This record gives sequence, structure tokens and C-alpha cells, in this order.
Amino acid sequence: MKQWVYLFEEGQADMKDILGGKGANLAEMTSIDLPVPPGFTITTEACMQFFAQGEQLSKEMETQIEQALEKLEQKIGKRFADPTDPLLVSVRSGSVFSMPGMMDTILNLGLNDETVKGLATLSDPRFAYDSYRRFIQMFSDVVLGVDHFYFERLITERKQAQKVSQDTELTANDWQQLCEQFLALVQKHTRKPFPQEPKEQLRLAIIAVFGSWNNDRAKIYRKIHQIPDHLGTAVNVQSMVFGNRGNDSGTGVAFTRNPSTGENRLYGEFLLNAQGEDVVAGVRTPQPIDQLQLKMPEIYQQFVRLSQQLEAHYREMQDIEFTVERGKLYLLQTRAGKRTAQAAVKVAVDLVLEGLISQEEALLRVDPDQLQQILHRRLDPNGELDVIGKGLPASPGAASGRIVFDADQAEEWANRGERVILVRPETTPEDIHGMLAAEGIITSRGGMTSHAAVVARGMGKACICGCEQAKIDLRRKEVEFGQRVLKEGDTISIDGGSGRVIAGDVPLIDPELTNEFQTLLKWADQVRRLEVRANADNPEDAAKAREYGAGGIGLCRTEHMFMSTERVPIVQKMILSETQEERNQALQQLLPMQVEDFVGIFHAMTGLPVTIRLLDPPLHEFLPNLEDLLVEVTQLRASADADPRQLIGKEALLRKVRALSESNPMLGHRGCRLGLVSPEIYAMQTEAILLAAAEAIRGGADVKPEIMIPLVGHVNELKEMRRLVEEVAKETEAQTGLEIPFTIGTMIEVPRAALTASEIAEEADFFSFGTNDLTQTTFGFSRDDAEGKFLHLYVENKILPNNPFVTLDPQGVGRLIRFGVEEGRKSKATLKTGICGEHGGEKHSIQFCHQSGLDYVSCSPYRVPLARLASAQAVLLDS
Amino acid sequence: MKQWVYLFEEGQADMKDILGGKGANLAEMTSIDLPVPPGFTITTEACMQFFAQGEQLSKEMETQIEQALEKLEQKIGKRFADPTDPLLVSVRSGSVFSMPGMMDTILNLGLNDETVKGLATLSDPRFAYDSYRRFIQMFSDVVLGVDHFYFERLITERKQAQKVSQDTELTANDWQQLCEQFLALVQKHTRKPFPQEPKEQLRLAIIAVFGSWNNDRAKIYRKIHQIPDHLGTAVNVQSMVFGNRGNDSGTGVAFTRNPSTGENRLYGEFLLNAQGEDVVAGVRTPQPIDQLQLKMPEIYQQFVRLSQQLEAHYREMQDIEFTVERGKLYLLQTRAGKRTAQAAVKVAVDLVLEGLISQEEALLRVDPDQLQQILHRRLDPNGELDVIGKGLPASPGAASGRIVFDADQAEEWANRGERVILVRPETTPEDIHGMLAAEGIITSRGGMTSHAAVVARGMGKACICGCEQAKIDLRRKEVEFGQRVLKEGDTISIDGGSGRVIAGDVPLIDPELTNEFQTLLKWADQVRRLEVRANADNPEDAAKAREYGAGGIGLCRTEHMFMSTERVPIVQKMILSETQEERNQALQQLLPMQVEDFVGIFHAMTGLPVTIRLLDPPLHEFLPNLEDLLVEVTQLRASADADPRQLIGKEALLRKVRALSESNPMLGHRGCRLGLVSPEIYAMQTEAILLAAAEAIRGGADVKPEIMIPLVGHVNELKEMRRLVEEVAKETEAQTGLEIPFTIGTMIEVPRAALTASEIAEEADFFSFGTNDLTQTTFGFSRDDAEGKFLHLYVENKILPNNPFVTLDPQGVGRLIRFGVEEGRKSKATLKTGICGEHGGEKHSIQFCHQSGLDYVSCSPYRVPLARLASAQAVLLDS
Repeated sequence: MKQWVYLFEEGQADMKDILGGKGANLAEMTSIDLPVPPGFTITTEACMQFFAQGEQLSKEMETQIEQALEKLEQKIGKRFADPTDPLLVSVRSGSVFSMPGMMDTILNLGLNDETVKGLATLSDPRFAYDSYRRFIQMFSDVVLGVDHFYFERLITERKQAQKVSQDTELTANDWQQLCEQFLALVQKHTRKPFPQEPKEQLRLAIIAVFGSWNNDRAKIYRKIHQIPDHLGTAVNVQSMVFGNRGNDSGTGVAFTRNPSTGENRLYGEFLLNAQGEDVVAGVRTPQPIDQLQLKMPEIYQQFVRLSQQLEAHYREMQDIEFTVERGKLYLLQTRAGKRTAQAAVKVAVDLVLEGLISQEEALLRVDPDQLQQILHRRLDPNGELDVIGKGLPASPGAASGRIVFDADQAEEWANRGERVILVRPETTPEDIHGMLAAEGIITSRGGMTSHAAVVARGMGKACICGCEQAKIDLRRKEVEFGQRVLKEGDTISIDGGSGRVIAGDVPLIDPELTNEFQTLLKWADQVRRLEVRANADNPEDAAKAREYGAGGIGLCRTEHMFMSTERVPIVQKMILSETQEERNQALQQLLPMQVEDFVGIFHAMTGLPVTIRLLDPPLHEFLPNLEDLLVEVTQLRASADADPRQLIGKEALLRKVRALSESNPMLGHRGCRLGLVSPEIYAMQTEAILLAAAEAIRGGADVKPEIMIPLVGHVNELKEMRRLVEEVAKETEAQTGLEIPFTIGTMIEVPRAALTASEIAEEADFFSFGTNDLTQTTFGFSRDDAEGKFLHLYVENKILPNNPFVTLDPQGVGRLIRFGVEEGRKSKATLKTGICGEHGGEKHSIQFCHQSGLDYVSCSPYRVPLARLASAQAVLLDS
Repeated sequence: MKQWVYLFEEGQADMKDILGGKGANLAEMTSIDLPVPPGFTITTEACMQFFAQGEQLSKEMETQIEQALEKLEQKIGKRFADPTDPLLVSVRSGSVFSMPGMMDTILNLGLNDETVKGLATLSDPRFAYDSYRRFIQMFSDVVLGVDHFYFERLITERKQAQKVSQDTELTANDWQQLCEQFLALVQKHTRKPFPQEPKEQLRLAIIAVFGSWNNDRAKIYRKIHQIPDHLGTAVNVQSMVFGNRGNDSGTGVAFTRNPSTGENRLYGEFLLNAQGEDVVAGVRTPQPIDQLQLKMPEIYQQFVRLSQQLEAHYREMQDIEFTVERGKLYLLQTRAGKRTAQAAVKVAVDLVLEGLISQEEALLRVDPDQLQQILHRRLDPNGELDVIGKGLPASPGAASGRIVFDADQAEEWANRGERVILVRPETTPEDIHGMLAAEGIITSRGGMTSHAAVVARGMGKACICGCEQAKIDLRRKEVEFGQRVLKEGDTISIDGGSGRVIAGDVPLIDPELTNEFQTLLKWADQVRRLEVRANADNPEDAAKAREYGAGGIGLCRTEHMFMSTERVPIVQKMILSETQEERNQALQQLLPMQVEDFVGIFHAMTGLPVTIRLLDPPLHEFLPNLEDLLVEVTQLRASADADPRQLIGKEALLRKVRALSESNPMLGHRGCRLGLVSPEIYAMQTEAILLAAAEAIRGGADVKPEIMIPLVGHVNELKEMRRLVEEVAKETEAQTGLEIPFTIGTMIEVPRAALTASEIAEEADFFSFGTNDLTQTTFGFSRDDAEGKFLHLYVENKILPNNPFVTLDPQGVGRLIRFGVEEGRKSKATLKTGICGEHGGEKHSIQFCHQSGLDYVSCSPYRVPLARLASAQAVLLDS
């Protein structure tokens, strides 16, 4: 005879397939002698059998349920339908994979017109009738198909009659009368009386829970999460315990360690003579868990022992729900406790030191994403937030300050010691000094790759982009968030990690790198195969990256060097020059500045490789905004007293800006296309790199420059640029008398580069997959446009499993990467490969990079620790 | 002993490897007893041996050359250095692959101070001394390394002394004295006398021609054209003949058939007592070839016989150079004659009917590209052109008309019978009626995929885009091309096939589809495997496509239907609607219009499949231009007496246009991304298609609609859109009571679609590769930006072998197509595949499509004949 029903003590943790997740967990807890309220599980096999038989319980099942119930009654010492002290049970679904909220639950089953009186005597009448009416409601909804609405209407009517507004204000008497009304309501709707016999209640409840496996919600949920339909759900029948049976009863929740700090000390709270609901409802204030030592010393001792036993058993910090019923302790649930990043790191490291887990396990215990919390200033989780808007989370970290609307003012106020938040429609290279001066940045236009976003991430500065709700009026110096109007000087806060804009000042928490943090990352370094580099454009970022454990710079974007206030005019002169001579003059002015940048970086990174990308963005990015100019020119034309020379100058500038402007700058004249059309720019940059290298060497640094040519799509582009770089190198060598050891490689950021990797590898010493652009071109998504206009809907509606700009798309973009690596290595075995897109700092993407055999990932300095940990996890998950 | 030297009569056509192209051709002509001036060839192997021996001729070679020369003297009956009638020869390089102009040639070798006198007696002194000084110049330059410049300076000095300006004005005496000066000059530069001994001249010339294989020009040319360096060049030594030895001598050029019309009748011209140069110099006017019948009846008869013999031998129309020396006819060269498209078609078909070639050969004889000439109005090749500008050749065909600067005026003038050319900075949907009214369009901005270009190609209307030289002043109604200012009403002509802008009126030739044309294409249809469809958006184009032999419509772009004048306001209402209700109202207005469009197309295409693409472009394309609006709003703001309501309205519109505008519209919110975010638009279009199909069926048509979802990158997009289409279909079916047989497929136009083709094929009945966009995304090239800014340089500098928007890139884009077809078919064997980008009308790309196993190509109606022919050629070239 097949066993359809298992008492908790008959099951084990590894029987999840037939007992479901919850059933297996209850069995596991029971098996290690935890005081779990007894019960039994009807198997998932029974569920499928139930469907196979036309939604009927077989005789055999019914008999086994009957037997299990008898054993339960014996064990508890209470009986179904006993009017003095009735056995009450919960009936819950429990499938193999968690499907939260998708199927049904019934509590307090066993109550009827008689047993409710017993319960009233044992606890109190108000609680008893409230429980009974809840049971009727739940049972009627789930089992009998009577909608909640009718019951709620009756409750509302009663509250109106009693002139009260809260359920909690209704009395025992009110609830008792409502129970009567509820029963009449059920009779009217179902044309049958509400089932009063507990065994019949149980039978119907089991059938209903089985049936809920095939309700629409559950079916859709399974489809979305790709859970097979044939698994079925188990049903758990568990005896109820009550913490509100007097002062020898109570209820509480506790963590075995402090979930905020990780400190190894019980942390939690409890309420005497109360049910879990009372804690949630906030009617009474719970007491800290250590007070339990005074109130119930024995229970407390037992709880401490149990929590140690649980940690030893589960080898993990636990979050425990418990109830004390008449001096007896029950554990209702135990699970791994949620914790902050700080706590996660400390707990993991402590558990290793306590000998409970291995270093490898500790590495897998910390979610790399959480490390971000540790590395940036963040909102105090206990602070009250007056959230007034939301934009794109463009650069993590939190900041508070006074609103300013232009970069000059930002600098001015910051110089006099004010903290400021720069609020702009969008930023341009001309705003850099203001961004540097500000604590954080908000823009109303532009996406995750807009100027503001990219620059802010590079600076490690909090930034929210594309906050379209923010209606900025630059003339009035006001910004409107919905109905809230803020003026220049008003204080505002932002959380760049979530995109939230908050009115007023909020408390912030500074980052702190603990010993445990360093220890964990050291362990990660011992395990990982991937090299972790940082994207850094200046000596400060390079130093920060090194501090965080970067093994080099994977992407140094030279355009950011072009964007500083004093350089933009020279860069513009270079771009707008009419003659080659003028252009060369401007380039000669830029040369020593670039040299200086690189010298600092080489010193900061001595001994480590530094990949420097030659100029990438289209030149119009360095010029004034076309629309602004158009408005200016139109205004000058309309004005009677405009200076005609000014108008002519602006008109000429407008023509040039328009001539350089592009319909799709992302796919336009940028990257090596600049280098091929205007080789003098790349020549200057190469010269600067090599002169800087020579200077750094003379200053004692060990330099390893890697010159990277961006946006190559055809091998000939790289061939030509390699020729140029080598030519300049020969000249510089002659000039400095020093032979600089350098390599030349390319970004793989358009599909054609990956598709022709075998040819391109012939001219490249390394490939760096620029996965931001590669994602844009592979999907045909402009990130700036997609994220605001349709991508969020794609993710919400599960058209795409993830935002591919956050998590690397393995089927499409990933296929190109694998192909590129394979073909590239076939053609050149020594080819070094890595990625330098933002995916380099995202855990799933890092795992993909590990599996694809890349040599390194490169990410923002603040993500280096995350990448170190994720790289180690990739090894552990892969083995 | 190895044979290093071959007399022409010893060689054959298939000895190209050792005789080079020219040598093998001369041998072939000699072998069929054509009267070729005798000579011999020194082999390519001798050349390589020459290099192997340190640039020396071996004894063996010298002996063989000596022997060949003796035989030549015997054959001609003239001898080297004979002062009365000297043997003169030409020495020419001739490699296996043609390298025009890369290596050296020496004429009239054998002249010296003595023999020149003989030549003077035999011809005339002026000719003799002119020939001698040319020989000295050429020989000194090529063999002795004395630069042309010195000789030219002496000629200039003499002209000044004689007070004449043209070389032709110098007398025999002048040339004789110049010869003396030349010889002295050589003596001074080389410190040796000019070699007077003809055999020594020959030896030195052969060494120099061999050596020219490794000159810089030739090396670079080989590198670019990937010609191996080890092939070497042959040297051809051929006796000179002269047509200027009296009235029994002459020279001429003739085609065996008329190269303009293809008529089977000798066509050419000749000059008595003249050399080829005289024809070229234009000093004397040649006579038509049939006059030769009167002047030299026997020679004429011989020439007619020879031309027939040549056609029979080469099985191709020939272009023959001939010289008559003292009553003896010599053929100097014969080769396949260049011809117009009309002639190419007629000759090919006639040769089949005459039994000279097979149908298959005829198909290979016509270059598909030429067919374009036949199908569009074109410039009369005999007309004089005053070219004043050049832009992108956006849509082929030629047109003349009066300049107008706006669409309304274009319509107005056209209505009163004027032919007009619409000149605009760029066009928008609001200009469509003007484009329809105009003969042709010029825009100063925008590329090959700009609105103007796409619409004009669809209309088959001549169009030049991105003509940046054209400075348009809309206020003054003027356009400036360099120094030329044209005003409204001035006449202008354009050639959309070359991008040339021409001042004034020019004669045009109308297209004519001859019987031969139809015959050739019928043969093509019997051979080709690829189906050829057309891209057509309205019933007129559909009818035109059918006339040209299209087997269906491969791409019907519904957005063009949204762009007609009366619809744009409704489309704008739909886009700008604030509520779902407003939007639905606008869509309901559009529905019957769309139905009407489709009914016409279905009737025109009865019995054939019609692929209809649902709305593709981003919605902002239907709205007013952002910059124009910005200017208007700025002007209204600046104006004291502006209507405030107007300002408010315009400001609101500006906000909406800005909200919809995108940084990279090409990668933005378009294609199925619209369908997913705003399903009501696709639902309306699907409804219109199926209602139209029902109406067409009732009207007796056999309809085969194929509904195409654009820009799919993930299978879920297509899955969702397929669900929508099927849902609407069910409703429409219920409404009409007719079951419409239709299929659902997708465009493959982003790399990710090709990379995940196996998944996407599960939801698709067909794939249509949109190679325009696929090229843009695979390369990361925005066509609009690339073509003006860097792509032309890429092609000029051979960074790319071709413009990938013209010729499909087989390594990158092509790899994705092959992968997509393979993976798609693996997952669904019945999957239909084709391409509908502009490559569908380009011969190399069509060949690629054939080889990749696609089912069809689709192109503009005017390119359908080209595609039919190219598809047949693909089969023939592949077998």
C-alpha cells in the first residue's frame, strides 16, 4: 500500500519531492527534536492521484488521513470537536518550489459553534470569536467559493452601526454576532449550512488546497517561473498553538545573531500573552528578547540552547518564530535570517572561525550585490524618507545637499563649504566642475549611459538620471516634483542606488571596511581564476581601485580627460579648427596635459597593467548643445538690439555644430572611425601615453601600458591604427631613448568584431569586450532611449528575463562573446580577453565571464570587491 | 633547355600563366590566322628567373631572344638598324592579372640617328622626328631614369622661342633639333651617350620592364588587389606598323555590332594616312567605317570577313583596333566591346538566336547592374552636362524641371503643367504630396535612408540626398551651388543614379522594354532558384512590380500609408492623444483607409503572396520636427504681439515632441517595441489587413497575406505579437464569416534575432532578413551618419572592400544570415526565408543569398528584372 500521508516525524529534509518544501522543512525540524507543533503531510503524489481520479480523494488516502489525525490527537492530547479544549489545525499548501501566495491556507480549522466556546474560555472571548469569524471567512472563500466581499461588507456595516472605524475597536460581542451573520450568509449563498463537523472541514479543506494547484494564479505563476505542472502540491496539517492563553504564554521572533551588525548574540523581541498578529498589528510594543530571561528564565535558556542547536544543524544564522503556549515552547518556523551586508560578511567569516563552515561556504554565503552597501555612503535604514520622485538609479550612493541649478554656482557654493546637489535637465562636459563640486546629481533627461551617469559613476558620486517627473525651470530656479515645488537652496537628498529623490535632509551612514570584509575578500582571491581590474580615468580613481584590490586598470577612458573645464575650450578649438595647422596647435596644447594625467595613473598602478582607450565619443559631445544654440541664435535674430557680430559668430558655430551632429551618434563617427579620419588625435594620445610612461619609469614606476583602439568592426581598421601607434612609438622611442613595453588591443563592441574575431585577433594583443555597446548593437537597443521608453515594460512583462544592460544576455550577446573568444584564441593562442562594460561588476555576468574562459573583468573601482567575490563564487558554483 | 621565349605563333590562349594576359591574347589571335603584327613573348618564368639571378638576363635567355628576333626579322622582311626601312618594335609588360598603367611600355624601339632618316623618307620627316623624340623620352624615363620633366622643359622653351602654344604647331625641323637636344641631355644626365644600337636598346628595355614588376606603384597595386608577388610579368616584343605611310595606309577602330543599340552591323570609324594618335588628338575628323568600302574595297571586305571570324571565334561582339600599312591590314587588338545596357541585352539574345552561344552564356553576358539604365529615364549620353554639384545617389533615374522650395508650390506648379524639382534641406511626411508632384528631389541633408531617399525609391522617382554643397536659403528662395546661385523657377536637372546636379535642361531618354529584354528575363526565370519579390507599398507599385515579373510582395511598408497628407493629422492625433479613448478614435479613422490600401494591393497581387510589415518607424517621425518647433516657440516667446494661446499650444506640442524624441532613433522605440507597448496600433493594422483580404476575396481575388512583425530580437516579442494577431484574426473571422489563410513571420534585422534564430523560428512561419538595419547594427554604423562622415573614406582607402549598405558584407552580416537560416531551419524545416533590404536588388548580394539557400529576395519594383537576372547568374556561377 502506498504511503500518502507522513507524520512530521516520519519525514526527512531530502523528501522535498513528495513532502514539498514546507513539509520537508517541518519534518527536518521535528527530526532533530525541535519542539515543533505536531502534524502531518499529505504528499504531492496524493495530489496528482487526486487529479487523476477526477479530483477525488481515494478511500486509501482518506483512511491514512484518518489514522494520522488520530496519532496527532494522541500526541497533542487534544481532540477534534472537543468542546472544552479542541484540537485546532492549520491546513497549508506546500509545493516543491516555493510559490508564495499562489495557493491557499486555512487557519484555526476545527472551530465550530461549540468549540469556539471552549476556546473562549481558554483564551478570551474576543480572540475566540475573532478567530472563528476569520476561520469562517477563510474556509468559505477557499473551500465554499463565497467571496470575501460579502463578509467585509457585514463587518463594515457593523463598524458603522457601532460608530467605530477600526476592526480592533469591535468587541467580543460584535464578533460573536458577526459569526452568526457569517454563518447565515454562507447558508444563503451555498444553500447548505456551514460544515460544523471538524473532520468534514478537514476533508473539504484538503480537497480545496489540492485543487488550488490548478487555480489560474498558480498556473500562470508556474508558466512564468517554468515550474512543471505535474509536480502537484503537498498539504500540511499542523496543530495550532496559541501564545495568548495567559501570562505563561507568548510569542516572538528572534535572530541567532544581530542581523544589522552580525554580532554573535541573540537578537529579537517577544510579547507575553499574545499572538503573532498582535506584534504585526503594532497595538502592543514587544520587548527585547533578553527580557525573556527575566520573565521566563527556563524558556529563555531552552530557547538559547535551541538556537545554538539550530545554527549547528543548519550551519547558518537563523531567523526563528516561536510561541509559548502555557509554559511550553514551540518553534513555528526557522530559516536563514535576512541580514545587512555588514552582518552577512561578519556572520560568514565568524562561522568559519567558529569551525561551522568552510571558507568556500563562507564565500557563497555573501551576495556580492550586497557589498555595494558597504562601499558607498547610504541612507540610514532607520531614517524616515519623504520620497518625492524617482528616476533611473544611475550611480549608487546617497547624498544630501542644497539644490543648485548650474555648475558654476555648484562650485561657488561648495567652495564656501555648502553641500550641494546639482539639478540639471542634462549635463555636458561644461558641467564637470559643478559635478565634481556637488555631493550628487539629478538630471531630468538622459539614461544610464548619459553623460551625467557615466561621469558620476566614474567619480563614485551619487546620481539619478532621467527623472522625468522633475520639471525644471532654469529661469525661475525651481524644480517641480508633482505638486511639490523646490527652489534653489532648498535641501534635498538622493539615493543613487534606488533612484529615489527625497525632500529634506536624511541621515547617512558612511562606508566602513571591516577586518571581516578584508578577510573574506582575501579568501575570494585565493579561489578566483578571473583577474579583476577597474575602470578608472584619473590617479585618484586608480588609487581607490588599488585600495579595493584591483589588479590593474581595464579601461581608462581618455575622453574624460578632455572634459575638464580648462581643457574643453582647447578641445573645441581643435574640433572647430579650419586648418590642419590650427588643429595641430590645439593638439600640442593638449599633449602635456594628457601626459600629466597618464604619469599619475602609471604611478598609482605601478607593477600593474593599465589599458588606455584612445578617444571614443563623437566630437560633437565636446561642443555646445545644438538645441541651446538654436534657441540662442533665434533669440539674437529676433532681438532688435543684438550685436550683429555676436549673431554672426553664433550662426557660424551653429552651422559647425549642425554639421557635426548625427542622427544616431551611438552608431556614428566615433571610436576608431575618428582615428582613421583624423589620425592626428590618436597620434597625440599615443605620444602622450608613451611620454608619460617614460617619465613614470624615470620616476621609478613599473609601467605596463596597453593601448586600446575602440569600436573596431573590421580588421583593417585595427591594422591601420596599429601601424599609426607603432609609428608614433618609434618616434617617441627615438625622442626619449627609452623602449616602452606596451601592447595594442581592441574593444569588441560591435557584433561584426566578434563575428570576425579570428581576423581581428591577428592584429590584436588583447580583446576587451565592451558589453555596454555590444548589448546596444546586438539587441538594436539604444540604452538611453530604451530604458525610459520600453525596456522597463519588457522586464515587467517578462518579455525579457532581465534588463540586458544590467545582466549580460547569455543567449545573444553572450553567444557573440563566446564565439569571439574561441575564434580569437584559435587565431592567436596568447590573446588576452576581458570585459570592461558595466557587466564586469555584476555577479551573473561575472559568472558568465568565468564560464566563457575570459581572463579578466573590469568594473568601476567601487565594484571591485563585488567582482572579486563574484569571481570566486563563479569558481565554486562551477565545480 | 627551358623555353623562355615564345613567338606569337607558338603560344595559345590557355598559356596565360607563362605568357601573361596580353601575350596569350596575341598568341590566340595569331593562332587563328588573324593578321597580327608579328612578335614574341618573354615569359613570366623568365621574369622570376631574372629576379632570382640578381636582376640579370641569363645567357640562355639572351640567346633565345636573339633567335626570336631573327625569326621576327625574317617574317616581317625588315631588319633592326636597317637605315632604309628599319624594323621598329614595341616593348610592353603583360602580367597574368591586368594591372593597367602600373608597369612600363616603350614604343618605336629601334630608332636611332640613322634609322630615323629612313623612317622620315618612308613616312614624313615631322612624324619621324616626333616618333624619335618620343622614343628617346620614353626610353630615357623607363630605362635610364631621366625624368620627363627635363624633356618637357626643352619642348616648352622651343615653343616659346617659336611663339607657338601647341605641340602640333612645331615643325619637322623643330622636332629634329629637339632630338639633338634630348640626346645631349641624356648624355649629360647619364654620362653616357644614348644607346644607338637597337639590340642593346631591346636588351635594356626588357630588363627595365622586368624590373618594373617591383616598382612601388606595382607593389602597392598588387597588395590592394591581392595579386601574389611571385607571378612576375611577361614582356611582349611586337613589330610596329604605321598607318601614316601614304594613302594606301590608315587606321581605325570598329565594333562588330552597334554598341549603343546592339544592331548586328559594323560600327566604327577610320582615318586614311594616319596613326591612332591622330584620331585621339581630334585634329582630323574620322570617317564612318562603311566609307572604307569606297576607299579600300578589298581591305573593307577583308575586315568584314575578319570581324565575322572574330565573333565566331570569341563568340562575342568585338571591339577591334586595326591599321592598314601600305595596303596590308593588321589587327592590333581585339576584345569584347563595351556596350550600353540595351545593346548588351540585344547582342546576348541575338548571339543565342544565331547559334553562337547558349542561353546560359547569354545570361552571363549581361551585367545586371546595367539593367537599371533600361528601367529608368536617363541622361542622353550625347548631351552636354553642366555639372554644378554632387550628392548621394539616393534614387536612380534622371529628371529636369524648375526649382521649387516647398511641397505646396510643387503641387501647385505641377497642377498647372510645369515639371518641377523639389529642393529641400530635408523632407518630412508633410512633403509627400510635393514629392509626388515633382519630377525629382534634391535634399541638402540626410543620407541614403533618409525620408526623402526611402520615399523616392519607393516612388521610383529620381532623388539626390545629402547634397551638402547646396546652401538653401528658404527665405530668399535661392540655392547656392558653389558660386552658382539658382532661384525659384530656374531649370535644373538631376541624375539620381550618380548624384550629379546639372544646371539647365538636359535631353532625357525614356525607358523601353524590348522583346530581347523580355526574352532574356524569361530565360533567367527558367534557370533561377531564388524567388524574386518586390518591395511595394501601394497598388501602383504592386502593378509595376508585377509587370516587371515580381513573384509577390516581400515588403509592404505600412508606414508609408500613414504618411499621405490627409492621414498625417489623424496619425498625429493618435500619437498625441491623452486618453486611450482618443487614441482608439483616431485608430478607427485610420482603419478604413488602411483597408482600402490593402484591397488594392491584394487585387494587384492576386494569386501571389503579399508580406505586410506592421508599423515600424518611431512615432516621432510623424510629428513636426523638433528643431523647427523650438525655433517657432523661441520666436513666439520673443515676439511682443504673439497670441498667448498659440504660444501655449506650441509649447505643449514641443514638450510632447521632445518627450518622444530619441538620442538614437534607429535603436529606439520602434518596430515591435511599438506593438508591445501600444498593441492597439498593431491590432488595428491586423484588422485592416484581414478585412481587406475578405473584401478582396469577395471581389474575386486570390489573397495570400503574410503578416510581418518588425525588429524582433527575442522570441518572446514575437510570441506576444503572434498572440495579438491571432486574437484579432479570430474576431475578424467572426465578423466577416471568412477564414483568411495567412501566415505570421518576422524581420531578422538585429544581430540577436539571427543569433537566437532557432528559438524565434518556433514562433515564425517566415524570416525576412532586413539587411539594411542588420548591416547598421552588425557594423554599428548609422547609415545616415556613416555615409557622409567616414564611410566614403573607408571605401576609398580600402579599409572596407565595399560600401556594406550597397554590397552585403559576407564575413559579418552574411555570417549572421547563414547562421540564422541554418538554425531557423533546424528548428522549423518549413521556415520560408528571404531578404528585403536594398541588397535584394544588388547582384553580389543576390549571389550570396542564393549560396546561403534563402528562398527569395525582395527589392524595389525597378530592380526586379536585375534580381531575376542576377538570380539566374548565381545558379550558373555556382554550378
